[in-house]
Amino acid sequence: MLPYQTLICINKNCSQPIYLQIVSEFIRQIQDGIVKSGTKLPGSRKLAELLGVHRKTVVTAMEELYAQGWVELIPYKGTYIAGCLPKVKAKQWSEQAVNLTMPKEAGFEFTPTKLIQIPTILNQRLSLNDGYPDVRLAPVEEMATAYARNLRRYAGSNVLSYGNLFGQEYLRSVLSEEFNKTRGLRSTADNFLITRGSQMAIYLTINALIHKGDKVIVGETNYHVANRCLQMVGAKILHIPVDKDGLVVEEMEALCTTHSIKAVYVTSHHHHPTTVTLKPERRIQLLALAEKYRFMIIEDDYDYEFHYGNCPVLPLASADRHGLVVYIGSFSKLTAPAFRLGYVIAPQNVIRELVKLRRVIDLQGDAVLELAFAEMMEAGIIRRYLKKALKQYRIRRNVFCELLQKKLPNVVSFNKPQGGMAIWANFSEKVSLVELAKIAPKYDIFIGDGLIHNPPNQNLNSTRLGFASLNEAEIEEAITLLEKVIRENF
Amino acid sequence: MLPYQTLICINKNCSQPIYLQIVSEFIRQIQDGIVKSGTKLPGSRKLAELLGVHRKTVVTAMEELYAQGWVELIPYKGTYIAGCLPKVKAKQWSEQAVNLTMPKEAGFEFTPTKLIQIPTILNQRLSLNDGYPDVRLAPVEEMATAYARNLRRYAGSNVLSYGNLFGQEYLRSVLSEEFNKTRGLRSTADNFLITRGSQMAIYLTINALIHKGDKVIVGETNYHVANRCLQMVGAKILHIPVDKDGLVVEEMEALCTTHSIKAVYVTSHHHHPTTVTLKPERRIQLLALAEKYRFMIIEDDYDYEFHYGNCPVLPLASADRHGLVVYIGSFSKLTAPAFRLGYVIAPQNVIRELVKLRRVIDLQGDAVLELAFAEMMEAGIIRRYLKKALKQYRIRRNVFCELLQKKLPNVVSFNKPQGGMAIWANFSEKVSLVELAKIAPKYDIFIGDGLIHNPPNQNLNSTRLGFASLNEAEIEEAITLLEKVIRENF
Repeated sequence: MLPYQTLICINKNCSQPIYLQIVSEFIRQIQDGIVKSGTKLPGSRKLAELLGVHRKTVVTAMEELYAQGWVELIPYKGTYIAGCLPKVKAKQWSEQAVNLTMPKEAGFEFTPTKLIQIPTILNQRLSLNDGYPDVRLAPVEEMATAYARNLRRYAGSNVLSYGNLFGQEYLRSVLSEEFNKTRGLRSTADNFLITRGSQMAIYLTINALIHKGDKVIVGETNYHVANRCLQMVGAKILHIPVDKDGLVVEEMEALCTTHSIKAVYVTSHHHHPTTVTLKPERRIQLLALAEKYRFMIIEDDYDYEFHYGNCPVLPLASADRHGLVVYIGSFSKLTAPAFRLGYVIAPQNVIRELVKLRRVIDLQGDAVLELAFAEMMEAGIIRRYLKKALKQYRIRRNVFCELLQKKLPNVVSFNKPQGGMAIWANFSEKVSLVELAKIAPKYDIFIGDGLIHNPPNQNLNSTRLGFASLNEAEIEEAITLLEKVIRENF
Repeated sequence: MLPYQTLICINKNCSQPIYLQIVSEFIRQIQDGIVKSGTKLPGSRKLAELLGVHRKTVVTAMEELYAQGWVELIPYKGTYIAGCLPKVKAKQWSEQAVNLTMPKEAGFEFTPTKLIQIPTILNQRLSLNDGYPDVRLAPVEEMATAYARNLRRYAGSNVLSYGNLFGQEYLRSVLSEEFNKTRGLRSTADNFLITRGSQMAIYLTINALIHKGDKVIVGETNYHVANRCLQMVGAKILHIPVDKDGLVVEEMEALCTTHSIKAVYVTSHHHHPTTVTLKPERRIQLLALAEKYRFMIIEDDYDYEFHYGNCPVLPLASADRHGLVVYIGSFSKLTAPAFRLGYVIAPQNVIRELVKLRRVIDLQGDAVLELAFAEMMEAGIIRRYLKKALKQYRIRRNVFCELLQKKLPNVVSFNKPQGGMAIWANFSEKVSLVELAKIAPKYDIFIGDGLIHNPPNQNLNSTRLGFASLNEAEIEEAITLLEKVIRENF
């Protein structure tokens, strides 16, 4: 008899049910030819004893293996590894197919884009990242329950089929009601397109509405991925400065009189990367200019919820009378980045245009995730989580800013942000961020070099330092290490 | 006291827990101003009695409302609707923000694309759709369990953060092992990019690797969405005929000698829309041409698993020695279309190029869904489901073809397909598909007009008729109705 006790490895601490572990271990051993076709298996009692599990577990595993066709039952004789294994044997139509390995490089030519780099994701324990949320605070248990419940509820229904091009009606209705109440919008569900995070919202808006040669105004520092999208479609990017009150809208009219402006991209609530808020006078002025020159405002309000001052500022979209604002947001920071949920809110003819592009990109969103999130939103679970997260993030921002000021007063200058998950840190000339980013990992601390935030031909020596994903102890540890790296190397 | 028994509607047949129903009903009544700030709530016993639920349910609901900040507890006095409601009060910065409704149309100009239409999704009960799977067969219970388990397992970990650009390593490894065994590939996990269905795989491949003016060969009939993607990037599309053995590769070399060919797009296993399989001689010839002229083969193997003949044919990718094939597939038909899971398999430098574009589209996939699917795949659950589905679909194909032949012998001609989920039906001249598609819904039967499958300037009067999403009784009903529509109208 085969030594099943050593062949079939069971990990009782693994959350996968033991019977499934037995099933996959058996399949592996059969596929690898260790347990051969025609082998008679020991009885369930014997096998249970060998594996140190309950007999019922073995029986369940055998039922599964039988259902999958890996074992056969012969009456009065026992259980055998199937003679004809269920692996699909495909038709080989070419002798070439034997013993190849895939070449490392393509055999055809293509031109790699220089516009987009694969980003370095700073996910180590002590990362001063771009401003990530703390996934340890995420409402995971509630999401797991809501997802599974909604999936079961809609089993066998068309919710699981094709069709969800705009996003689930239920989610769009819940959001429309919520945003009309809290953000001063006057939307209906038809003004919504549910996307995969604000990233897809930006991509769709730019790719569907802006074409080669169109002129688009952005801040001199601007969200780098929006810049990349604009460059990809061949837009002509015009820059205006950003000061402590956001985009310097006062400089915009001069551009409007000399150029036909197609769009302005603005992160009004917390400018990316510098975190400043666009002040009310400039908001009014920006809308007036859009109305006068009929350009579109792409308002990317990616972190509206995360504001630590008295109250957030209503979006530009709330005062748009003429259908000039395409309003973009995200729930990926509210749940966790792995849940790609975002939206575009715009007049219906814009939404329908975006949907056309969405249809060829990924066809539709994740219906179950959308329904689960809508339910959590309606039941107030998201609000409760937000309340908890805001409290933590406010404390973390305060601790982070105080420590940075205390430990690195002559190295880092910054303004305490009113919201968001990162500060915009300007490093003194003597500390090169590029060097610092290279050396820091040796001290187990990770920091971005800030190059992606640089306007063309400038070296700001500035970067975003995320405070939200670290707890207070980790912030203390991180800044202590950062001070040490700088002291010992610069 | 307020009439809570009528204000708070509870539906005991709803799968949402009752306490959550109470919570959301209370929130709604508070937001609508019906239950006012400062209102004292009845005691838990009284409220439970009024609502006809267990006292514990009321207590749980109150705890939730308290955690969310909607109610306050005053010692020795009771539970009150909170004085300061948790709704975030945003700063209104403009008088304009009052009483607007969103305009129906954008206030700025844009050029709607004529290339892509928003498709009509045929999801009614008796739809002869494009070839949808039957979501009633989907392994929903297993997916719900696996999703929730994986989400809980990775609670608080970086799996829920940013980072999953290529797709989860675990899924890529499981797939690589499986495809090397069953499809004759020689891949590693690094040759995989997990996408949102094969749709995103097609979009990424075409948009990242093919540029304006590049010449691409496709079948005269071809998957319409691939055509749209090629047109969007400005590729020059060259057509070759398709016969009962797939793309007529024999006609390809003439094009290669006169044009610099960048790529060939091919649905080798079951040609879309005509369902034919590319024969082995042509596969060898196609690979030889790609090698000679160094063009890329985009092999879209969207329904490899669904083959009802003796055995499926190994993909072109299995015999590619030179890194010429970009291999695309999907699991959305294997699970359910709502789960957007697909992949690209290609040399590493191609994968890295596709990832750059993916990063600006939606950043990353759904980590939890990917892990759940990988686990189900490894445990053989997907295989078991496939076995069950194949059995059903084979029967449905047979019943569908027999009935169609019996009831509409002079109207519809077709070849019984070896796989897939639809037949390619040619309608006789006297029955205009465009007319039929318009009239059919009056008889509660739905059929596509086939226009999207037409080559330029041709009217094939052919369409795909999906058989997989209907059970045998529904197939009988559908074809009986179809016969009736045709008899009474043509």
